[in-house]
Amino acid sequence: MNNFNLHLPTQLYFGKDQHLELPRLIPADAKVLMLYGGGSIKRNGIYEKVTHALQGFEIVEFGGIEANPQYSTLLRALEVIKREKITFMLAVGGGSVIDGTKFLAAAALYKGEEPWDILAKGIRTEVGLPFGTVLTLPATGSEMNSGAVISRKEIGQKRAMGGPGLFPVFSISDPSVVASLPQRQLANGIVDAFTHVMEQYMTYPTAATLQDRISEGILSTLMEISETVMARPEQYDVAANFMWCCNMALNGIIQKGVPTDWSIHAIGHEITAAYGIDHARTLAIVLPSLYRHKLDKKEAKLAQYGRRVLGLTGDDRAVATAAIDKTEEFFRSLGIGTTLSDYEIDHPESFPAQCVAAMEAQRTIILGEHKDIRSTDVKTILKAAL
Amino acid sequence: MNNFNLHLPTQLYFGKDQHLELPRLIPADAKVLMLYGGGSIKRNGIYEKVTHALQGFEIVEFGGIEANPQYSTLLRALEVIKREKITFMLAVGGGSVIDGTKFLAAAALYKGEEPWDILAKGIRTEVGLPFGTVLTLPATGSEMNSGAVISRKEIGQKRAMGGPGLFPVFSISDPSVVASLPQRQLANGIVDAFTHVMEQYMTYPTAATLQDRISEGILSTLMEISETVMARPEQYDVAANFMWCCNMALNGIIQKGVPTDWSIHAIGHEITAAYGIDHARTLAIVLPSLYRHKLDKKEAKLAQYGRRVLGLTGDDRAVATAAIDKTEEFFRSLGIGTTLSDYEIDHPESFPAQCVAAMEAQRTIILGEHKDIRSTDVKTILKAAL
Repeated sequence: MNNFNLHLPTQLYFGKDQHLELPRLIPADAKVLMLYGGGSIKRNGIYEKVTHALQGFEIVEFGGIEANPQYSTLLRALEVIKREKITFMLAVGGGSVIDGTKFLAAAALYKGEEPWDILAKGIRTEVGLPFGTVLTLPATGSEMNSGAVISRKEIGQKRAMGGPGLFPVFSISDPSVVASLPQRQLANGIVDAFTHVMEQYMTYPTAATLQDRISEGILSTLMEISETVMARPEQYDVAANFMWCCNMALNGIIQKGVPTDWSIHAIGHEITAAYGIDHARTLAIVLPSLYRHKLDKKEAKLAQYGRRVLGLTGDDRAVATAAIDKTEEFFRSLGIGTTLSDYEIDHPESFPAQCVAAMEAQRTIILGEHKDIRSTDVKTILKAAL
Repeated sequence: MNNFNLHLPTQLYFGKDQHLELPRLIPADAKVLMLYGGGSIKRNGIYEKVTHALQGFEIVEFGGIEANPQYSTLLRALEVIKREKITFMLAVGGGSVIDGTKFLAAAALYKGEEPWDILAKGIRTEVGLPFGTVLTLPATGSEMNSGAVISRKEIGQKRAMGGPGLFPVFSISDPSVVASLPQRQLANGIVDAFTHVMEQYMTYPTAATLQDRISEGILSTLMEISETVMARPEQYDVAANFMWCCNMALNGIIQKGVPTDWSIHAIGHEITAAYGIDHARTLAIVLPSLYRHKLDKKEAKLAQYGRRVLGLTGDDRAVATAAIDKTEEFFRSLGIGTTLSDYEIDHPESFPAQCVAAMEAQRTIILGEHKDIRSTDVKTILKAAL
């Protein structure tokens, strides 16, 4: 087992009506910037609940943070923070709003000239402007970790950032919000959380017995509940398990002491940057193809997953191969396409070369738990995913 | 799923040589009280490692905190804290030293006349004197939670305390320490962690699917590694899984959103108070007998445990019954007696009545996840454990 540090400073309030804790959690003298997305919170009642709970606080609003939060949008929010002398932020939304807020937490205290450098130069944020979250869409786990992904479509880039200063002070996770989510977002959330676990689990056997068991527990739970989540998202207990899985998938615990992959995300980010396809769907496109390409090196762990999570039997090779097929079937059963041609995009056949060129323009391609996924591998993986 | 709050503020440094982080983790201007137990840290090299890492810090030592830390011993440490104007404590030891340090963290800032009131009146500690830990004995999970259990043999009591002010600021967990532990402590640690999980898991089916899977993962891992832990504690990876299981068993995560039992601990504490039997061994005495007594109400969950963790098959009743037997066998395979007569004690036959009288002298006996374990049940459970 590798050495690790675990720090989960975010106070999580999980359950029904936990937004009622808000007045106690935000400093009384704070000047608050409340951030949200396209306005769904005004239709599902969350906006009203939150603003009602925060009566008496001095609040400025900034709406319109889009999926795959854009740098240009966030620069406008940054101006508001500076102009209004904001001291605390409240992100009310899903992973995009929370990630955008994390960028702002970093940028608000950043001393440099160009905030994009935080992403382009990989500058870690040690201290950020404090913020809390009200999660409206379980998927990314962003409500309890210190990472964010920001897009800049003008230059076709999607970059990650992080640092200990970017943990939310608190997060409110009320599973009741799942009831009002569209099918598309439910399916995306399940695939996103599932793939988060896989990126930290599907590598090679190490002696991290407990970490494996916990990861397998999240994968099993997501598979067990997914049909009900899609069919009856208003079932509170199923929604609660879904939300808790999304959190546990990326709150940091299952990555402790183990090798991790994250190549699916790296390639998936390029698909989103190029075509705007939902993040989770890009993961579903890349995962099966990448695992087939790396079958030799991932065989032992794929076989373990196949036996323990999927209940498959047979020799390692057969179980590993079937496990990839079953995983792809699982994604498709949620209505999520697992090839590029499942999406309406122009000239997908030119994408593998274009993707590699875009990635190489940023840095040398060295991906995966063995650092052995290079340019030619990315091309091969994407061609197999056409 | 029940509402819950999750807060794990302790910074965990897990792995080889993590004590080298100490100079960075303790405030440079601190006056440190270093607390330890009977002196095993001077034989196994940990004392030297820690004091070497802390060269330049102003340190006062207090050794001699015993297993089941005694109020009278801790009062002497409290005098040292006040006399020496201590500003930070470092617990170097197992659960007893850490629990003793938590009591001191509370007592040092307590405004009342009588520190025992913190335990007797169940006063929660909101702010305590800050402290870190260097864990030398995995078992209790005390290194990452905010609870403690303190004994006062003069009045035959063992009481629990807690509060958000009692989380360690940091904890150093180096699995290398497992290599030098005696067989007795290894076995105790395994049973202690195993029972901690059971107290939070072995209740009745709720819809907490993921919590169940994580608990089952810890139980499976403990069973899988126990033989090697006992035979070859110097195997680092096995020791690391053991240490990580002990932490995950009681860092708060698996109890979130679910009913918990803790009646085994409540009764076990009385056995320790009466006879000084090791905490873990008292749990092994109570667990099988208590589960047999509550078979009807715990049947469904015992059956789930039997199937998923132990691989048993059959109808619920048969699997549940066999699951208790197998658990008792597991404890015995570690060399741990599971009846009172396995221990050299005088007049065990009079203990059931004596135990109930001692418990009733403190408060009405209302135990278990259904609050249905009363005086007569405790007597029945203990008689069956003779």
